[in-house]
Order: sequence, then C-alpha cells, then structure tokens
Amino acid sequence: MNTDTHHSILVGLGNAVRRHRVMRGFSQEALAEMVGLHRTYIGSVERGERNVSLLNLAKIANAFDLSVSKLLNDVEQEVEELTNEFSKQPK
Amino acid sequence: MNTDTHHSILVGLGNAVRRHRVMRGFSQEALAEMVGLHRTYIGSVERGERNVSLLNLAKIANAFDLSVSKLLNDVEQEVEELTNEFSKQPK
Repeated sequence: MNTDTHHSILVGLGNAVRRHRVMRGFSQEALAEMVGLHRTYIGSVERGERNVSLLNLAKIANAFDLSVSKLLNDVEQEVEELTNEFSKQPK
Repeated sequence: MNTDTHHSILVGLGNAVRRHRVMRGFSQEALAEMVGLHRTYIGSVERGERNVSLLNLAKIANAFDLSVSKLLNDVEQEVEELTNEFSKQPK
C-alpha cells in the first residue's frame, strides 16, 4: 500500500465523520464532548490528519449510533468518490 | 463506552486476525512481512493487546484481501460471540 492510499483513507474518514456530524446537527465541540476527545482532535480527524485508533473509531461510530463496520463502509465510499474525482481531472 | 467494551473489541480484532491468518496458512512472520510490521506486533494484536490504528487495520485487511469494513464486520461478529459466551457462563 502506498502513501497515496494511506492519505486517501484518512481523508475519506474525515469526510465521513464530517458528513455524519453535520447531518446530525452536532458541532465539533458537541461531538468531542460525546466521545471524550478534544475539539481540536475532531478537527484534525475531519481534515484527514489523524491515524485514528480502533478504540477512537468505536467511540466516534458510537456517537453516531453506527457500528464501526458501517462507518468504515462509508469511509470506503468516500475514498471511491475521491478516486473518481481525481481520475476525472483533466490531464 | 466502558472498559469492558474497549477490551472486547480489541480481543475481537485479535480473534478475527488470527482466524483469517490461520485460514490462509500464514505464519505470524509471513503476515508481519506482508504488512511491513514486526512479528511481535502481530502477536500482540492477536492477543487483543493493541489499539491498532486505521492505517495498520487497512494494511492487515489488505494482506487478507479484505476491505477494512469487512474485517471490522468480522470483528463485530467475534465480539458478539465473546458476549454470548460470557452470558452463558454459570452465575
């Protein structure tokens, strides 16, 4: 697995977390409080800057009332969309 | 989420990783080499002692030719089995 793939799964996670949070009308502060993490941590997750651990993924999924596998499924869809957008760009 | 839930998802991950590895006839050394991690790291993952990051989960899933969401789905099934076993124990 190359660095691009690494990067895209973290960006995909960030997009999925932001989408679920906004969909539920949670602020970053509110989500942070629900999961017991700092607001700046949630911000960095949403920017795809964090290599989040399984326990923190479970906490975040739990705050959205999702299973971790469902959250990861959404992450994979986000990654697919990112890949499609990239391949559509003019050469 | 309490400490027991934390523990069980890591134990579930360990069980799922061991099951997929053995099913494919990989040694811990072979898997470690495929994912670019140390054999002792794989051992500690299988014992449920590691809070594995998303990038390492992706590497492990990739070695099994699984998506991360499918691997996590198996982890959740393992957790369910652990919970059932626990509740079946005599009081």
